Amino acid sequence: MKETHPFATRVNAQLPGWLVKELHTYNALLPTAEDRVRLTNRLAARNYKEGNGGPFAALVVDPATGELVSVGVNVVLSSGLSSVHAEVMALSLAQARLGTWDLGSAGGRPLELVVNWRPCTMCYGALVWSGVKHLLIAGDGPECEALTGFDEGPMPTDWRAELEGRGISVTSGVLRSDAIAVFAEYGRSDALVYNARGTGARPRE
Amino acid sequence: MKETHPFATRVNAQLPGWLVKELHTYNALLPTAEDRVRLTNRLAARNYKEGNGGPFAALVVDPATGELVSVGVNVVLSSGLSSVHAEVMALSLAQARLGTWDLGSAGGRPLELVVNWRPCTMCYGALVWSGVKHLLIAGDGPECEALTGFDEGPMPTDWRAELEGRGISVTSGVLRSDAIAVFAEYGRSDALVYNARGTGARPRE
Repeated sequence: MKETHPFATRVNAQLPGWLVKELHTYNALLPTAEDRVRLTNRLAARNYKEGNGGPFAALVVDPATGELVSVGVNVVLSSGLSSVHAEVMALSLAQARLGTWDLGSAGGRPLELVVNWRPCTMCYGALVWSGVKHLLIAGDGPECEALTGFDEGPMPTDWRAELEGRGISVTSGVLRSDAIAVFAEYGRSDALVYNARGTGARPRE
Repeated sequence: MKETHPFATRVNAQLPGWLVKELHTYNALLPTAEDRVRLTNRLAARNYKEGNGGPFAALVVDPATGELVSVGVNVVLSSGLSSVHAEVMALSLAQARLGTWDLGSAGGRPLELVVNWRPCTMCYGALVWSGVKHLLIAGDGPECEALTGFDEGPMPTDWRAELEGRGISVTSGVLRSDAIAVFAEYGRSDALVYNARGTGARPRE
């Protein structure tokens, strides 16, 4: 049917081809926190080099078994959408796979979001609404912003207590130096890879 | 090609059919703030009755001309994705239409996000990353949470100054009582329309 209006009506975002090609190798369990964060660090390090977006990756995992439910990377550049950070992709893909917007009601399994650093303001909110019960992050200090130039956004002062008050526990500080090494490498690569608008300011992807 | 893995790889969300059917009537300009907020209030009032999600709607507008760039409503229930609040839909659909993740670089026009109340934590972050330069909201007090039962999430104490420090101006208090009337009507309809999990707790859609 011919459209009689100029508006977009659908939002589509997808994982990059290089990651989709790897997914058949992702059947192994990730039983330890180190296993999970190691995967996010590896994907984050590749993601920006492939041009999909920033150096960020996220997983949804069943921590009781180590089963991987979903994998996400930041696809802001490849999708042209500013909201598809790694966490939003991982949470949305878990919801698409499990058929529910509430991951807290998914078969009685408390699920975990794994990220290679503390989420930005947007993703912090997204994780609260998703129904996950645990957040596992490589770290949460100023290193990410300092090394990459990204703004993480205005966070509430006691971000961790706000999560815990909503039934979401937090583990931080797993393979922290490995995560920082990815941000440092990204920072050094800046002039070549980014600055797409030629303004001297790094875009927030 | 047959998939050899169990993972979801694409995220899809779309506007509801009733809204798509109306879009051909949306060619008129919305020159005043009241024009814009009135449309969000009307769409919010219909959205929850149609079963798409909560009573929230958002627009992206060129405030210099009143041109409507995109329309969004909350489609958490109809899409099965917890992140597709009205603001995320409106921002993403504007980016899809204009072909850029950075609405601040779209033809030199400073664009405005219009919402029928202050955004939740997630959408607050999403608007910062989107490149819009102005936020227009019907109101920002406790009435929305009190009347609807929704949690807006942990916000930074000085949310407005944080936006203004990033070059995003805020106008609040336009058709405020009309917005509140929608939330009150939603609140009264609670038992019938929502509480999908039968737990007595309202889902965060």
